[in-house]
Amino acid sequence: MTSNLKFTIDLAKRAGNLALSKMGKIQKITSKTDRRDVATDVDIKVEELIVEEIRKNFPHHNIIREEGQDIDNHSKDAWIIDPIDGTKYFAAGVKHFAVSIALWQKERPILGVVYQPGTDECWWAEKGGGAFLNNKKIKVSHLRTMADTIISVGGGGIANKSKKEQTEYLKVLNKIVPVCNRFRALGAGSLCLCYLAQGYLEAHISSPIRPAKIWDVAAGMIIAEEAGAKITNSKGKWPGRNTNDLIVTNGHIHQQLLKLLNKK
Amino acid sequence: MTSNLKFTIDLAKRAGNLALSKMGKIQKITSKTDRRDVATDVDIKVEELIVEEIRKNFPHHNIIREEGQDIDNHSKDAWIIDPIDGTKYFAAGVKHFAVSIALWQKERPILGVVYQPGTDECWWAEKGGGAFLNNKKIKVSHLRTMADTIISVGGGGIANKSKKEQTEYLKVLNKIVPVCNRFRALGAGSLCLCYLAQGYLEAHISSPIRPAKIWDVAAGMIIAEEAGAKITNSKGKWPGRNTNDLIVTNGHIHQQLLKLLNKK
Repeated sequence: MTSNLKFTIDLAKRAGNLALSKMGKIQKITSKTDRRDVATDVDIKVEELIVEEIRKNFPHHNIIREEGQDIDNHSKDAWIIDPIDGTKYFAAGVKHFAVSIALWQKERPILGVVYQPGTDECWWAEKGGGAFLNNKKIKVSHLRTMADTIISVGGGGIANKSKKEQTEYLKVLNKIVPVCNRFRALGAGSLCLCYLAQGYLEAHISSPIRPAKIWDVAAGMIIAEEAGAKITNSKGKWPGRNTNDLIVTNGHIHQQLLKLLNKK
Repeated sequence: MTSNLKFTIDLAKRAGNLALSKMGKIQKITSKTDRRDVATDVDIKVEELIVEEIRKNFPHHNIIREEGQDIDNHSKDAWIIDPIDGTKYFAAGVKHFAVSIALWQKERPILGVVYQPGTDECWWAEKGGGAFLNNKKIKVSHLRTMADTIISVGGGGIANKSKKEQTEYLKVLNKIVPVCNRFRALGAGSLCLCYLAQGYLEAHISSPIRPAKIWDVAAGMIIAEEAGAKITNSKGKWPGRNTNDLIVTNGHIHQQLLKLLNKK
């Protein structure tokens, strides 16, 4: 384990445990796009802790973050941070939320850590070093028959979207749901990618109209990849930081899924 | 707290911690209806522990259980047990699973306990006594505007179902998804009802073609009810143990949701 990874694991755990200690003690909720798209004072406090530590240790790196202003030092290295992925769960006192911290070099992640304080689980990966959950190596599932798979789809709930966008979203659901064994819509994209990395999900598809933000998935992407996952956009290309169109699978069903999603 | 409730909480915690201690050490997986509908040797061992304790303490009661044979003593009291709700999660090492134990008198629950060992959270309720999460009273959400709600739908993934059943399921999804703020498909029905009881979800709808079994929801139903939820079938009647058609809401959106689901 490199010192960068050790630093990131320690920081994610500190940040996650701070968030958990504040659960049920939220003092302020701010709505962003709608009444359920919220940030709490805890999101902001936890992000401050993470940013402060990164600035102290990596003063020349860029920082991309969910809540505050990004820091652009014209570096090829960027830390990408979500202090609380799953804020809606957190705000209701449900422990399905995680801290996500990743380091990217240009368009590729080189390390990622996701920590769920409510279960004390830490997933991590470094380029070329495999993926781990609490020190145990994890691997994607070996299933290759679509009818056996569990597939998750990102953020539905589209009451505030246009008719055209609603139709686009429902088209994806109506393609996926009938071909898989179970479909899931779990929220907290970071955890979806970790569940895929450890073999629970065979695929995760970002919503076409309420796509994952890069801070939701920046760490999960390398954790999934190092566990054997394949990650592309719907054209089969590496998505980079453009997560508007993101398809992650166990590899075995990737081509079948792309074909299905691209079918008119 | 009555002695029956204390007994049930202690038992659910013992059972849940036994399951958690066996995670990653499953020795045998048996498929039931398809490759993902599984029981492990751990489900069976945990159920045995629960049944043994109930028989010792309540020798004249009935027992309805997920894995083994039911016990019918012609009693009006029936214990309804799911040793591991969320076995697919459990089998993949994800801590999103729970023990569910309820006591029903004829067609009504009188106490229910759901314990998630991975987060050390215990939800419970007794008839008329309110609902609790780890000793803290919980209440359903107060939201009444459909476009603000989070709604979960039970067990999709319908590859093995007939075309007619697939269409029926998709009809429900296509009605729900466009009107809510977020939709969720989480698996583990017991936890869905607890999340509703604590205000994260505004509604949970059982799948019309892969409905919840009574052991998934028997405890969650009284926990939700005692937190203020409304529970009916699509005709607006108390469903009893017939969970093929089950709609649970925070009460405020119940009529709107029934109307929507009954629309041709």
